[in-house]
Amino acid sequence: MYKLKRQDKRSPARTGLLKTAHGTVATPAFVAVATRATVKALEPQALTKIGVQIVIANSYHLHLRPGEETIATLGGLHRFSGWKGPTMTDSGGFQVFSLGAGKEHGVGKIGSIFPGEEPRPPTKREKQGKSLVKLSEEGAYFRSIIDGSEHFFSPEGVIELERKLGADIIFVLDECTSPLHDYTYTKGAMERTHRWAKRALNAFNELACDASFPNPDQILYGIVQGGAYKDLRHESATVIGGMDFGGFAIGGSLGRSKEEMHKVLDWTIPLLPEEKARHLLGIGEIEDIFAAVRRGIDTFDCAAPTRIARNGTVFFKDAPRHRINLRNSRFRDDPQPIDETCNCFTCCHHSRAYLRHLCLAGEFSFYRLATIHNLHFLVRLMQDIRAAIESDTLDKLENEWEN
Amino acid sequence: MYKLKRQDKRSPARTGLLKTAHGTVATPAFVAVATRATVKALEPQALTKIGVQIVIANSYHLHLRPGEETIATLGGLHRFSGWKGPTMTDSGGFQVFSLGAGKEHGVGKIGSIFPGEEPRPPTKREKQGKSLVKLSEEGAYFRSIIDGSEHFFSPEGVIELERKLGADIIFVLDECTSPLHDYTYTKGAMERTHRWAKRALNAFNELACDASFPNPDQILYGIVQGGAYKDLRHESATVIGGMDFGGFAIGGSLGRSKEEMHKVLDWTIPLLPEEKARHLLGIGEIEDIFAAVRRGIDTFDCAAPTRIARNGTVFFKDAPRHRINLRNSRFRDDPQPIDETCNCFTCCHHSRAYLRHLCLAGEFSFYRLATIHNLHFLVRLMQDIRAAIESDTLDKLENEWEN
Repeated sequence: MYKLKRQDKRSPARTGLLKTAHGTVATPAFVAVATRATVKALEPQALTKIGVQIVIANSYHLHLRPGEETIATLGGLHRFSGWKGPTMTDSGGFQVFSLGAGKEHGVGKIGSIFPGEEPRPPTKREKQGKSLVKLSEEGAYFRSIIDGSEHFFSPEGVIELERKLGADIIFVLDECTSPLHDYTYTKGAMERTHRWAKRALNAFNELACDASFPNPDQILYGIVQGGAYKDLRHESATVIGGMDFGGFAIGGSLGRSKEEMHKVLDWTIPLLPEEKARHLLGIGEIEDIFAAVRRGIDTFDCAAPTRIARNGTVFFKDAPRHRINLRNSRFRDDPQPIDETCNCFTCCHHSRAYLRHLCLAGEFSFYRLATIHNLHFLVRLMQDIRAAIESDTLDKLENEWEN
Repeated sequence: MYKLKRQDKRSPARTGLLKTAHGTVATPAFVAVATRATVKALEPQALTKIGVQIVIANSYHLHLRPGEETIATLGGLHRFSGWKGPTMTDSGGFQVFSLGAGKEHGVGKIGSIFPGEEPRPPTKREKQGKSLVKLSEEGAYFRSIIDGSEHFFSPEGVIELERKLGADIIFVLDECTSPLHDYTYTKGAMERTHRWAKRALNAFNELACDASFPNPDQILYGIVQGGAYKDLRHESATVIGGMDFGGFAIGGSLGRSKEEMHKVLDWTIPLLPEEKARHLLGIGEIEDIFAAVRRGIDTFDCAAPTRIARNGTVFFKDAPRHRINLRNSRFRDDPQPIDETCNCFTCCHHSRAYLRHLCLAGEFSFYRLATIHNLHFLVRLMQDIRAAIESDTLDKLENEWEN
C-alpha cells in the first residue's frame, strides 16, 4: 500500500512509503533488476549493504528456469533467493515485445529511445530476428529462448505463475507495443491489454484465498499502454486507473525520443489515482530519473546500470553522462577510487587502476565490484532526491546534476 | 621464515609457522590461486572472511597485464589488489611448461597425473598446440597469450619482476619439464635450472638493498626439479637444498601417476633442510593433500578447487572423491545447503536448489558462492589436519576421509 509523505509544490514529484509484506520502500526509489532471481554478479546480502530497497525479477525467465513449481516448493522467491526485502515480478509483457515485435521490427529496445539505451542501428542479428511470440485474444504463445519449447501465457495463467513466485508486487500481463507499431495496431493492442487487465484482476481476486501460495499479501499493479499517442494514453490511464489495482505501471512503447517519453508521462500520471503508487518500466539514465520523478513516478527499474557496469562503465557525477569507462588507459596507474566521495565497498577498497586491470582481464570479481558501485550510486542519488523533495530543493539538486 | 611447531612421530608431517612481512601462516596450509591478482570471482576481503591465509599470483600473467611497472607504481601487489595478507608469486616456470613442452607434447597437465586433474586424452586444440616458448641458457622467450608479443624471462629478470610485484614469497625461474621428456632431456633441463637458481639467488641478493621496491622483506624459494627420476630428484634436492634459499618448492613433472608423485616427495623432502619451508606446486585433491602433508609438505597451491567450483562442482565430505555437482537434477528442489555441517557464507545462506538454478543460468553470482564454499572447505580441512598433527591423530583423521 502506498502512503504519500510529501507532495512537491511545483511539480507532481512526491515522496512516499510503499508498504509491502517484506518491508517498506521509501519512494521515489530505484528497483534493482534481478531477472533470474539474482542481481547479476551480486549475492542478495550485498544488496542490503548497498542500501537497495527493492528488486524486480522476471516471470518469463523464472518460468523457463527453474520453473515456478520449484520456487513455490522452496517457499517462494524470498526464501528461494535469500533476498528478504520487497520484490516485484514483471509479467512477461515486456518479453511479448522484446521477443516478438521488437525482434521482427529489428528495433530491440531501439528506434524508440528506451531509457538507459543509446539509439543505435539494429545489429545484423537483430534485423534477422524472427518473432518468438504469437498473440491471440487468449494470451501469448512464447517459444523458450533456452530450448525452443512452447509456453502459453494467459492473463490468468500469469497471475497464477506470479502467485507461485510470491513477489510482493506483481504485474498483469500486457502487450508492450513497438515504437514502430502504427496507431491502429497500438489502439487494438491497448484495448486487448485492457481486457487482459480485467481478466487478470479477476484471477488475482479469485486466487487470493488460496493459502498454498507463498505470499498472501501480494499487490497487483495494472499497466497503462497506448504507445506515444496522446488520446490512447489518456484512454488507457482512465481505463486502467479506474480498475481496482494496488498500483500502476507505465508500460512502453514510450515513443522515439526522451521528449516523447516525457509527454507520455505528462499525459498519463495526472489521470492515475493519487493515492496509489506508480511504477515506470525501464528507466536508468540520470536525466531520465529526474524527469520521471518530476512527473510523479514513485519507482522505476532498469537493467542498464548493472549491465554497463559489467562492461566497465561506472557512474561518476562530474563526467559526461555521469559515467566513465574504466577500460580507458588514463586509469592505468590511477590510485584513486572511482569516486572519492563515494563510500561504497568498491570505492572504499579499490583503485581505478586495479579495477581497470580486473576489467581488462575479464575477471568475474570485476563484475561484482563495478555493480556494487553503480547500484550504490543510484541508491545515494535517490536518497538525495527524496531529501530534496522533502526540503523543497528539487530544482537545486537537478541543477547540480546537469552537465 | 619458517618455525617448526610439531614434528609428527610416525611421518615427516609437521606443523609450523611461516612468518612473512604480511602475516604468519599456520602450516600445513592451502595457498589460494590468484593468478591475475584476484582469486577468480572473489574480492580479497572475502578471502579473509573465509580464513584463507595466503594466496599465489603469477608473474608471467601480471607481467603481460597490467605489467609490473604499474603494480610497483601503485605500491606493490598488496596495495594494488587490496589483499593485505601473505602472498606468493610464481616465477613463470610453470608457463615454460604449459605454454611450451606441454603444448607441443599435447599433454597440457595430462599424461602425468598433475594433481587436481583427471587423466584424459588431449583435446584437438591441445594436440595442435605449438610451443609459445623458446629456451636458451640465458632464459625463456615467451610469446604473449594476449597479443603474441615476445617477452624474455631470464633468472635475473624474473627476480627484478618479482621484486617489483612485491610478494612476500617469490620463486626462482625454473624449467618445469614435461612427463613425456626423457631422462637425458630432464637431466639437462635440471642442470640448467640449477644454474638459473644460482643466478637468481645472486640477483636477489644484489637487489636486496634497493629501497625502491615495495617489499624489502621478500623470501626467495628455490625449486627442485628432476622429473620422476630418482637420481635426478636426489641430485636436485641436494644442489638446490644446499643453496641459501629462504624455502624450497617441489616442481613438476611429478610423474605419470599419483604413486610416482608420492615417490618424488619421498625422494626429495628428506634431503631438504628441516628448518625451512617446503612448497608443492599444483595439489588439490583431498587424497593428495594427505599424501603431501604426510611427506612433510608445508604449503601447496592448486587452481582446481576454484576452477571446478565455477563449473558447479563443490566439495562434500561424504561423496565420491569428496565432491558433488550442483547441476545434477536431484538437487532441483533440494532446500538443504551444500553441507549442513559447513558454516561458510554460502552454506549459511543458500540452498542447493538456488545454487543449482544460478549455476544452470550461468549467473556470475554462482561463481562467487561456489568458490567461497570450496575454499572454506579446504581451509577447514587444513585446520583439522593441523589439529590432528598437534594431537597425534593424523591417521585417524585420514581414515575418516577415505571413501
